[in-house]
Formats: sequence, C-alpha cells, structure tokens
Amino acid sequence: MKTIRDMRSLRLLASIALPLALAATGAAAQEKPKGHGDDPAAAYSPSMTTLGELNVEVPGRKPEDPVITPEEFQDANTLYFERCAGCHGVLRKGATGKALTPDITRENGYEYLRDFITYGSPAGMPNWGTSGDLSDEQIDVMARYLLIEPPAPPEFGMPEMLKTWKVLVAPADRPTEKMNDIDIDNLFSVTLRDTGQVALIDGATYEIHTVIDTGYAVHISRISASGRYLYVIGRDAKVNMIDLWMETPATVAEIKIGAEARSVETSKMEGWEDKYAIAGAYWPPQYVIMDGDTLEPKKIVSTRGMIYDSQEYHPEPRVAAIVASHFRPEFIVNVKETGKILLVDYSDIENLKVTEIEAERFLHDGGFDSTKRYFLTAANARGKVAVIDTKEGELTALLETGGETPHPGRGANLNHPVYGPVWATSHLGDETIALIGTDPEGHPDNAWKVVQQLEGLGGGSLFVKSHPTSNHLYVDAPLNPDAEVTASIAVFKVDELDKEEPEYTVLPIVEWAGIAEGQPRVVQGEFNQAGDEIWFSVWNAKDLVSAIVIVDDKTLELKHVIKDERLVTPTGKFNVFNTRQDVY
Amino acid sequence: MKTIRDMRSLRLLASIALPLALAATGAAAQEKPKGHGDDPAAAYSPSMTTLGELNVEVPGRKPEDPVITPEEFQDANTLYFERCAGCHGVLRKGATGKALTPDITRENGYEYLRDFITYGSPAGMPNWGTSGDLSDEQIDVMARYLLIEPPAPPEFGMPEMLKTWKVLVAPADRPTEKMNDIDIDNLFSVTLRDTGQVALIDGATYEIHTVIDTGYAVHISRISASGRYLYVIGRDAKVNMIDLWMETPATVAEIKIGAEARSVETSKMEGWEDKYAIAGAYWPPQYVIMDGDTLEPKKIVSTRGMIYDSQEYHPEPRVAAIVASHFRPEFIVNVKETGKILLVDYSDIENLKVTEIEAERFLHDGGFDSTKRYFLTAANARGKVAVIDTKEGELTALLETGGETPHPGRGANLNHPVYGPVWATSHLGDETIALIGTDPEGHPDNAWKVVQQLEGLGGGSLFVKSHPTSNHLYVDAPLNPDAEVTASIAVFKVDELDKEEPEYTVLPIVEWAGIAEGQPRVVQGEFNQAGDEIWFSVWNAKDLVSAIVIVDDKTLELKHVIKDERLVTPTGKFNVFNTRQDVY
Repeated sequence: MKTIRDMRSLRLLASIALPLALAATGAAAQEKPKGHGDDPAAAYSPSMTTLGELNVEVPGRKPEDPVITPEEFQDANTLYFERCAGCHGVLRKGATGKALTPDITRENGYEYLRDFITYGSPAGMPNWGTSGDLSDEQIDVMARYLLIEPPAPPEFGMPEMLKTWKVLVAPADRPTEKMNDIDIDNLFSVTLRDTGQVALIDGATYEIHTVIDTGYAVHISRISASGRYLYVIGRDAKVNMIDLWMETPATVAEIKIGAEARSVETSKMEGWEDKYAIAGAYWPPQYVIMDGDTLEPKKIVSTRGMIYDSQEYHPEPRVAAIVASHFRPEFIVNVKETGKILLVDYSDIENLKVTEIEAERFLHDGGFDSTKRYFLTAANARGKVAVIDTKEGELTALLETGGETPHPGRGANLNHPVYGPVWATSHLGDETIALIGTDPEGHPDNAWKVVQQLEGLGGGSLFVKSHPTSNHLYVDAPLNPDAEVTASIAVFKVDELDKEEPEYTVLPIVEWAGIAEGQPRVVQGEFNQAGDEIWFSVWNAKDLVSAIVIVDDKTLELKHVIKDERLVTPTGKFNVFNTRQDVY
Repeated sequence: MKTIRDMRSLRLLASIALPLALAATGAAAQEKPKGHGDDPAAAYSPSMTTLGELNVEVPGRKPEDPVITPEEFQDANTLYFERCAGCHGVLRKGATGKALTPDITRENGYEYLRDFITYGSPAGMPNWGTSGDLSDEQIDVMARYLLIEPPAPPEFGMPEMLKTWKVLVAPADRPTEKMNDIDIDNLFSVTLRDTGQVALIDGATYEIHTVIDTGYAVHISRISASGRYLYVIGRDAKVNMIDLWMETPATVAEIKIGAEARSVETSKMEGWEDKYAIAGAYWPPQYVIMDGDTLEPKKIVSTRGMIYDSQEYHPEPRVAAIVASHFRPEFIVNVKETGKILLVDYSDIENLKVTEIEAERFLHDGGFDSTKRYFLTAANARGKVAVIDTKEGELTALLETGGETPHPGRGANLNHPVYGPVWATSHLGDETIALIGTDPEGHPDNAWKVVQQLEGLGGGSLFVKSHPTSNHLYVDAPLNPDAEVTASIAVFKVDELDKEEPEYTVLPIVEWAGIAEGQPRVVQGEFNQAGDEIWFSVWNAKDLVSAIVIVDDKTLELKHVIKDERLVTPTGKFNVFNTRQDVY
C-alpha cells in the first residue's frame, strides 16, 4: 500500500527525471507562488525605476543574508541543479514549480523552506526529507542556499561547445553503403535512462543489436531524413550522432550544447535532407544549428527576450520541443517561458530568418496532424494547445483542452467516425483525453476544437499513441498515484468513438512482463513500422528488472516480452520509420 | 592656446554628450584593454565550466571588495551612468572605451584608477579631475565603485513603458488638414542639446516657429512618410511625437522606451506610411515597435544574444542606427556589440519576422546610397563599412574604409566624375574621407570599394554632407583638438574630384557667426529642401551664444546667421524633406 507521500515521491522522481516527461503534475503548475498573483512569471517582474533615478540594489552581502560557506554553497548549487532546476528553473524564476527568488523565500523564512523540502506538499512538491532522498544536513544547506540570490550560471557559447565537439569518424571514413543486415526502418532506439545509453533493438527479432553510451537520461531520439543518422540528446545536453550504416552502429560525432537540454531535430525539407541538426538547451537558454554530418556547431541563437504577452524580459526562456517542417526549410522551436514558437529558416544561416509567433506561455511538447501541415503543441501550465500552420507560418488557433496540464508527447492522429481527422492529447493533471479536430477543409466546423473528451485510467498520463493502420488509441498513466494504474494501459477503439461514453480495455502490461519487484511504471507506447505491434516500456528502478512488452495491435494480446540485463530503466522508444516520417 | 588636456576634455564632452556623435575617437577604440588581447569583447569571455561541474562564483561580498557605503554606491552609479556608460557600457564590458569589469580594475588597482580618471590618457580617456569636471571626492568614490561588480540595471519592459506613455492629443482630436502656413517640407528640426528641446526653424524665413520640450540631448529627428509627424528621441530614451499640422506644432504623444537610447525611425514602405514608429535603446538592449499615430508600444524585442563571429553571449548589445527600407516593410536595425544588422519585418508584428545579418562588431551609424537600395553602415571601432542590400535582404559587402573609426552620420552621395555614384564617410580617428563606389550595375569594378581617399581639415570629423543638386562635399571636424579646425568646414568640388590631390576651400563658419566667446564647434551641415543652402550649427557652451550659419551652396558665401536667445547649444538639424526622403 502506497501512501500519498510515496506517490508524491514517485511523481517527483518522474517529474525531474523521466526523460520523456518535462513537467510535473498539473496541480504543481496551478499553484500560486506566494504573494505573486496567478503567474509564476510575475514573480520576477522588475520593479523598475529609470537608471537616471538609479534605484538599483547594491551588490554584495546584505545584513539579512544567511551564513553559508563557499563549500556549502557549491554543494547546494550542485544539488539544486540536479534536483530542483528542472521544475524551478536555474535562475529560480519558476515554471512548473514555484518561483524561489529571495524576495519570496525570505518572506517564507528558513523554517518554512526546511519543512517544505522535508515534507513536500500535496500540490506536487516532493517530500525530499521523509522520502530519504536528502539528508537533514542537505536540507539545511538547501534552505539557507535558497535565501540568497541565485548565482548566474556560466554561459556556454561557441568556445565552450567547440571544446566538447568530437568527430569520431569523419564523413570520408564512413561506409558508402549500409554495412549491416539491420532493417533500419523497423529499428527502435530505446533510452536506457539511468545508464546514460540507448539500446538499438530490432523491430522484427526483438534482439538488441547494440547498446551505445550517450548523455545522461536521453530525452529523445531523432532520425535524419535519409534514415541513416540517429541523433540523441541527454538531459546533460550531450548530443550523439549515430551512423546506422556501420556494421555495428556507433557514435560518429558528439557535442555538448549547454548544461541542460531536451531537444534535438534534423532538417527534413526536400533538398535539405540530413543537412542540418538542431538542438535546444534549457541552460543557457539557446538553440544551436549544427552540421548534419559532423555536428559542427554553426550558429548559436539565444532565446532570452520578452514574454509574449506581458512583454517583460525573461532571463531564462528554455527551449522545449523542436520539430522540422515538411513544407519549408524551417525548424519549429518551442520557447517555454516566453510562450513563443519560432520558425527558424535554415536555408541561409548566415542571414538567419526567424519568425517569432506569439502563442502561449509554458510551451512544451507536441506533434503534427496527419497531413504534417499543422503543428499542435501544448502550453501545459496554461491548459492550452497552440496550432501552427507550418505551410503559411502562422498561428492558426489557440484552444483550451478542457483538461489540466496537457502532455501530448507528439500526440496521436485518429480518423474519428464522426469528426474525421482528430489529434489526441492526454493530461498530467486529470484523466481526460482531448480529441481535437484537425481537418479545416473536410470538417471545418470541428477544426481546432475539442470535439470529444474521453476518460482514461486516471491522471498522470504522459503519452497517447495510435498509427494510421490501427483502430486503437493507447493511453498510459505512469505518474498516477495508483500502482495498478501505472502498471496498465487503456485502449480505446477508434471506430467506437461515436458512442456516447466510449469504454476502454485495460492491458495489464506489468503483469504480462512478469515483474513482481518494485513498482514499475508503464510508459510510452510506440508502434513498429508496419503498425501492427505496439511496444511499451516497463520502467523499474535501476537495480530491478525492467522490460519492454510488445502487444499485438489487432488482438490486443501479449506478443512478446523483451528482458535483458542490459535493458536498465528503459523509457522512451523511437521507431526509426515512424520518427523520421512523423507517423503517430 | 589649448593644451592637449583641454582638447581631450572637449573631445570627451563631445563623445559622451554630442547628440549626433555616438562614439569617442578612434584612438580610444583602438586601445587594448589590459591583458585582454585586441578585442574589448574578449574581456568578458566566460571561463565556462558546465553546471554539472559547478564552478560558479559565490555571490555576496568578497574579502577583496573595497569599502563603499550604499549612498556612495548610488552616487557613483549615477555618475557612471551620466559620464562613463556611453563609452564603457552600462555593464562595463567595454565598446568605444575599455572594459572596466572587476577582473580588470582589480588588476590595475585603486591608485591606477584614481589617477587615470584624474589625468586621462592620450588615447581618448578624458582628464576628469584636472578638467574640473569631477571633484577629488567623486573620483575617489568612482575608483572604489569600479573595483566591485557592476549592478544589474533594471529592465524596462512593457509595464514600465506603459507608465510613461502619454497621448496628449488623441488622433480624433487632431486637425484633419494642415492648420498653419508653414512650408513643412522646408522646415528644420534643430536639437537644442542642453535645454532638452527642439527648435522648428523655417527654411525660407529662418524664423523659429516654436521650441518644443523633449528628452535630453535629442539624438535625432525623423519624419513620418507623409511628412506630418516628427519623431525625436532623447539620450534619456524619451520619444516625442510632434504633429506638424497643428496651428503651432506640438507634442501629441510621448513615451520613454528605456534608460538610454539613440535611435527612432518610422515606416516608409508604400502602404505602410505613418503606420509604425520604432525606437532603439542602449539600455535595456532592445527595440520597440510603436503605433505611428499614438506611440502606443506594440512589440518589444530584446537584442541580447550572441556576438556574430565568436558566438559568445553578450549581455548588452546596444541598438545603434535604425533606418526604414523603401523596398520592403522592414526596419533595418544596427546592433552594436554583436555586430548584427536586423531586418525587422513590420508587416505582421504578432508573427514578427527578423532576419539577422552577420556583419561586423561595433555597428554605429550609416545611410542609403542614392538609389536607397543599399544601406551603408560603419562598424566604427573595426574601421569597416557593411553594405546591406535592402531589396534582397542580404550583406552585399564588408569593406575597410582605410581610415580610423569611420563616422558617416548618414554619409553623403556624390556623382563622381570618374567613378560614378559614390558614398562618402569621414573619420573620427584621422583626416581621411573615403569615397565608396555604390553603382554595381553602371560601375561594377568600383562597387563597394574605396575608390578615392580625400584629406580634410583633420581628424575628429563627425559629418559629411552633399545634395543631389550640389557640386560640393562639406566635411566638418568638431572633435579636432585644433580650435581653428573645429571652427571651420572644408568643401570639396565634386566635379574636380578627378584631380590627383583634390583641394578644399575652408569656410570660416565661427568667424562668420561673429562669436568670440568660448570655443564653439561647427557641426553637421544640413541642406534645405531645394539644395541651394547648407546650414551649420555653431555649438557653444550653454551659457554662451550659439548660432546657425547658412551658406549659399553655389557661391560658398555666407547667406545668413540665425542667432536667438532660445538657440541654446544647437547641434543636429534635420530638414523635413531631406530626412523623410533620405536625401543626403
């Protein structure tokens, strides 16, 4: 029996650690920072006076500063980066978590901070103390650390990137044809979170072809347009470029593009296949366009700037999801805190053209509709989805999903029996799944509206999945507090969505995996190339057995379980064909 | 007889104060910050370690921090902003002046700083102490202030701008037709620097129609495409919008767009006349697009980002000159420290499209060629001119002028007897005038090359001027150390530029003005609409008599002297027609 506190702990672990989940629960996002209205961003609104009037703060230690030694400060800073920055931001301006700038923390005081860190809150703050994750000493130092101004973390520009850039196999030394028998289009790149690796698993034989060292907790895998190169990015901002043509696929180039990152993508426009890669960083807030063959960094662009609506300066607008347009030579870059979607034209990077679309704050993840023309992306803490027309380069719609904290991953495209083409997202904050009409020509009345709300297993969902050939919509709930829920997948039949209250089938994935130890979470369905199987990760603790469970899409029966000692903490899985073709 | 020190003082006054001159001498710009190679920007290159390795500085007072009281700090901060920031930057990263970050100042030490501030240097640092500008006490505080970290000055976003925005006469309450008999197209808007005003002076009668309160030391005047509205911007970032149709022209709207600024412009593309205004700030580093009728701020864009070549982050990339394209709905924005020229498409400001052209660091001022297609702009501390094709939206050329620290103002277009259409710039750092070919179709061999170098009166020139109907090129030298030089103007005959060493005529402007007191400087020739007269400011100290001297362009004889008790410290003059049509 799990207590509420345990659940929170699990949720927390997921929220800062799950490589596929960038955010904590909706509840956390809804919480108001004390004394700062309804918007985390408001917490750092400058109280401006002109320089002429010169009401600036004197730097240096202030009388109310707590005592902290340089060593304690460094320790706390490390801890903050590892455990807290994901939700609260490196500069502590708040995003998914509360703002923690000294104006706020000092109002709360040392004891409040210490106890909050120790016991957590029902709104999503984990119980770091009672969970045993942090010692009393660590919590004491952290509470003191939070009372003083956050240090400005170092920049990471071209000189720093170049120091980390390695071409392990130069393009001229790479094979000129595929040197292996792997069916690359049906290969799966699987994140092994805690070991900092990806496993390349055969989609037909379920064999692990190879395991490749990468950055820590690889967030996503992307495939070059040709299908040859696999790009992965770790939470530590390390990018690996893997050549799938080699006898044994291996890293041919690598680079670090910052201190913390989430996104990588490659150019997909006709004529630009494999030409560029792009990666987006959380810190420093920037993206970098790289040579698609070598990862040579070509152009770094800072995302620091104004929040789209309040037009106040934000010092840490993090780069969330990036996708590549199929209609223009453009990358589409979500900038989280400022709520801007950037169309980055890569056709002339020395004269870089960027269109900055005002969308909504807290942009996160998203995907294309079935035509790949429209990019639907969640502004998670605002409960909204923004729709970008990638052909015209403009905001088509901004709609509420009706649920709390939408988390689409890339979403799922269905052909609805009543409403025609729809795109689905589940939610972190509740059990709803929103179906949004995506066919402005065939079904204009339904376009960019929530046409139907389904109810899944419960809140804490991260991913929905379907396939053009499938009649099913799969919904996970790995962050739900109920262990039975996290162990299962809900499946809706697409052709029965015309019913008033569509019912779902429950797949007991953990049971099928035959794993009794721990509380493994089932996360992220991913189809094979043919669309007749769907793979789920059964993600257990690092020292326990994990698995991948493969389900027959037609019969919804268990087809296979992959267990292997190398399969440690599997999370995200990326089928080469579906990923490069944006099929989901 | 002036001493060298006096000259430096004058130069300094000009360099931080002259509204038409953004920079100090070339010598200053060439000086190397101690221990930092040949590039001021290198002074703040971050010594990066990853956040994971966490080698960040502990904030708070350090043992080596000098003692300074909060009151002293505020005083020094005010003084720094007023006297030092123009050259050294608000964040002290250096630009025209040296970098003054604590890593450098502490290496030099207190005594060095104190003496340097007191006595100045031949390289362009003024002798603040011996000139009497600063007291020993002020210098003492400043030297201590420079030893500690610069404070982060406050931001100035939309909430702050809106607080300063006033519509004094709403568009509906303004006249529907011109209510006065002023020949607007031949009106001159004249900056009265030290009183924070502009005088509107009739181009035919030389009468002062009115004097209007504005921001301090108005840097430029710009005219809306229709010719109705006059926009001026003070060094204090205050923008006034003046309606020239009113019986007595007056301010109808005003706003402050930051703490320090230099540039304002209005939309000139066909179909967009009078629709938008734009202003660029030095601090915060940003520009703002405003409603052309009311100055309502619509869109603020931060310029913080990467330096074009080193791709290191710069926290203070200041906005220098802005011009409006005649070929596209675009503003062309010079970003000084990062060396980028932005093409800001104003046709859809909610989906703002910006093309960022990599040009050269320390972009400053510039103007169009005679066809208005090409924008030539100086990268002053690099001795270069960048040429932007505003029709194609790309960098056409980047060339060395052959002189030190080009300062074109808007430059001057001449029809050269040998080389065809050329554009001229003089230099702050030496006596040369560079003529650059601007006719890639008619004279392809000469295009974007220095085809001829002239020698003027001496270094310290700020402005050259000509007119399509004129056979003359006028060159000032107000920052020259020689009082006789600053009192004069050199005139070249365009049709004699085919001679081997073209000679110039000297116009004794100050003598013609009949001013004996002080050391007035002659600055910035400006033609009337017809192009048959050129006006020069005779800029004297605030408590002494200044004047405007008008010269007959055909005969080079004195035509008129405007003296008026209201004409205090006149500097820049902007003829309405020539300014709105970009005729120069």
